[in-house]
Amino acid sequence: MHNDTLALAQALIARRSLTPFDEGCQEILIDRLEKIGFKIERIRCGEVDNLWARRGTDGPLLCFAGHTDVVPTGPLEKWESDPFEPVVRNDRLYGRGAADMKGSIAAFITGIEAFVAEHPNHGGSIALLITSDEEGVAIDGTVRVVEVLKARNEMIDYCIVGEPTCVDKLGDTIKNGRRGSLSGKLTVKGIQGHIAYPHLAKNPIHLAAPAITELAQTKWDEGNEYFPATTWQISNIAGGTGATNVIPGEVAMLFNFRFSTASTVESLQARVHEILDRHKLDYSLLWENSGKPYLTPRGDLVDAIARAITTVTGIEPQLSTSGGTSDGRFIADICPQVVEMGPRNATIHKLNEYVEVEDLGQLPQIYRLTLNNLLLR
Amino acid sequence: MHNDTLALAQALIARRSLTPFDEGCQEILIDRLEKIGFKIERIRCGEVDNLWARRGTDGPLLCFAGHTDVVPTGPLEKWESDPFEPVVRNDRLYGRGAADMKGSIAAFITGIEAFVAEHPNHGGSIALLITSDEEGVAIDGTVRVVEVLKARNEMIDYCIVGEPTCVDKLGDTIKNGRRGSLSGKLTVKGIQGHIAYPHLAKNPIHLAAPAITELAQTKWDEGNEYFPATTWQISNIAGGTGATNVIPGEVAMLFNFRFSTASTVESLQARVHEILDRHKLDYSLLWENSGKPYLTPRGDLVDAIARAITTVTGIEPQLSTSGGTSDGRFIADICPQVVEMGPRNATIHKLNEYVEVEDLGQLPQIYRLTLNNLLLR
Ligand SMILES: [Zn+2]
Ligand SMILES: [Zn+2]
Repeated sequence: MHNDTLALAQALIARRSLTPFDEGCQEILIDRLEKIGFKIERIRCGEVDNLWARRGTDGPLLCFAGHTDVVPTGPLEKWESDPFEPVVRNDRLYGRGAADMKGSIAAFITGIEAFVAEHPNHGGSIALLITSDEEGVAIDGTVRVVEVLKARNEMIDYCIVGEPTCVDKLGDTIKNGRRGSLSGKLTVKGIQGHIAYPHLAKNPIHLAAPAITELAQTKWDEGNEYFPATTWQISNIAGGTGATNVIPGEVAMLFNFRFSTASTVESLQARVHEILDRHKLDYSLLWENSGKPYLTPRGDLVDAIARAITTVTGIEPQLSTSGGTSDGRFIADICPQVVEMGPRNATIHKLNEYVEVEDLGQLPQIYRLTLNNLLLR
Repeated sequence: MHNDTLALAQALIARRSLTPFDEGCQEILIDRLEKIGFKIERIRCGEVDNLWARRGTDGPLLCFAGHTDVVPTGPLEKWESDPFEPVVRNDRLYGRGAADMKGSIAAFITGIEAFVAEHPNHGGSIALLITSDEEGVAIDGTVRVVEVLKARNEMIDYCIVGEPTCVDKLGDTIKNGRRGSLSGKLTVKGIQGHIAYPHLAKNPIHLAAPAITELAQTKWDEGNEYFPATTWQISNIAGGTGATNVIPGEVAMLFNFRFSTASTVESLQARVHEILDRHKLDYSLLWENSGKPYLTPRGDLVDAIARAITTVTGIEPQLSTSGGTSDGRFIADICPQVVEMGPRNATIHKLNEYVEVEDLGQLPQIYRLTLNNLLLR
């Protein structure tokens, strides 16, 4: 299995699947999945290739989710080897997407193959949800497949997203949720005027400052067992005509919440408006880019994958909800239990990305044992 | 005198003396001044023409100060007549510089001519300080002439700057001072980072907001009898990489004080630093564009011109120190009493600039009577 996973990961890395292009990766998977009885659906949206493959019709349905697209390479001359010519050096497989996440996808396939070979009549169903639009705008990817499944009421019971979650050792971290993200574009209005006549103007920067102070100092929540407290940050601020003798008519800000399940989009929006209103600001506020948080508390799936990890690696995994958003948020819409678990993430999105060959050996076993734990009864 | 002042103003307006060019205006004045016994000094600096003309060697020395340069016209098609072809319509003389300040300069000349004709052996001395660099950067203009005079210890006792100061009626406003101007470029530093990991970053916008609030709310002084309170305003603020998921490493601001004689450059600078330091900010602050305030309290000059105004117009003038900076600040360096008094300023720096023909009739009388009040004893 070890060499087979490495070979499959290399075949996938050799495809230049820069987001949002799949470049034939999914057809490689389809060849393998059809051989072990998966029913294949190609769900193409615009330039994006999506794959929904399912083996079995019973519940529970355990889905592996991932993406074949990769982020740009950055300057090629700074790579020690061509990012699309996978090569093993020092027990590491180098190439763009090696860790994020063609290694995981290879491990899905070989792990499932081993499981099916051993248990051809397993309980429940196994599915793969693969997109080529995770690293980009993520509009025509996982979210579209979820729409299709939802429309026909095909719900998922357990989902394992293969994102690289581990830090120091394979198995040290399971992500069992992600914070939500909520952005706003705030424009505080004043009255433009000459700086020598401030009584005829209203300086929107001065007016906004106390509200910014309060927003920055607000405790939005305390977080909870799984999430750190919600945070609010301004990313950009701009006000002024460029002239040094003019009080500007407005100041604009972009801000972003990363929020725990202790808050909701609606509660955060209401509290921001309350603060801005209380400061008697004349403002416009455009809410945008909302991504809900999701959380999978300890339960069947977390326990199953944690036990599999400990069996394979001897490590007790930690639960984490840190980091940016992932496609897990979309899947959570039709699946009560979503976790993310994949190889070490030290080099993702960086130059000279690699995955440890050892991780490629152990990951399929972890996925296989998780199937054992959930689909054999 | 009335027609003569109008004719001289027209001759000056006909010269396209866009700042910093004089275009022969000063030679017109020199012709007239030499005829009545003025000693002429042409002080040319770079492209700028400056004129120092003096009649008499005794004290006290009363100086009329002004500029021959004008601001750009703006779109010509929006002028009802060519800005450099002076024309009288509805008792107004139209043309660029009519009010700011070729009308005043014409009134200086005819007012002095009348005074000298009547009192050829007047006491004291009369001078004119005329530049062609007031509307622009004001580097090679009045400030240079003041340097020359200071170097040879030629101090001025009284100075009347002919800037258009009046609002509704000629004589309603004497400016007996101007606030100072002090600017700063403040950069507050933080630590750049990903918006999902704010604990690894320091948001400079959040850090700056409480200090901005305090600076904006600070009472710098109460002003005094002649000055309104000092004001502090931010004109520009900018922070952010453009990316919506990055906490920026710094935020930059431009700010400006307009300050009364109740504060000094040094006291304001010290107080800003105290506030920034107390808020424990990591910042850089570049002080720039400092212009000192000046003030001429009630006394010989204010009384003399106020009485002249009341005699000519029947109006009791108000004292004011409002508005932007003027060349008065440079002259105040070698002259304890500086006031500004000229025609109505409604159209200065605007399209279809004009001066009331009536003002051109009364201004020379006001200047002449001021000479009477100060140089006859
Ligand atoms: Zn990924
Ligand atoms: Zn002027």
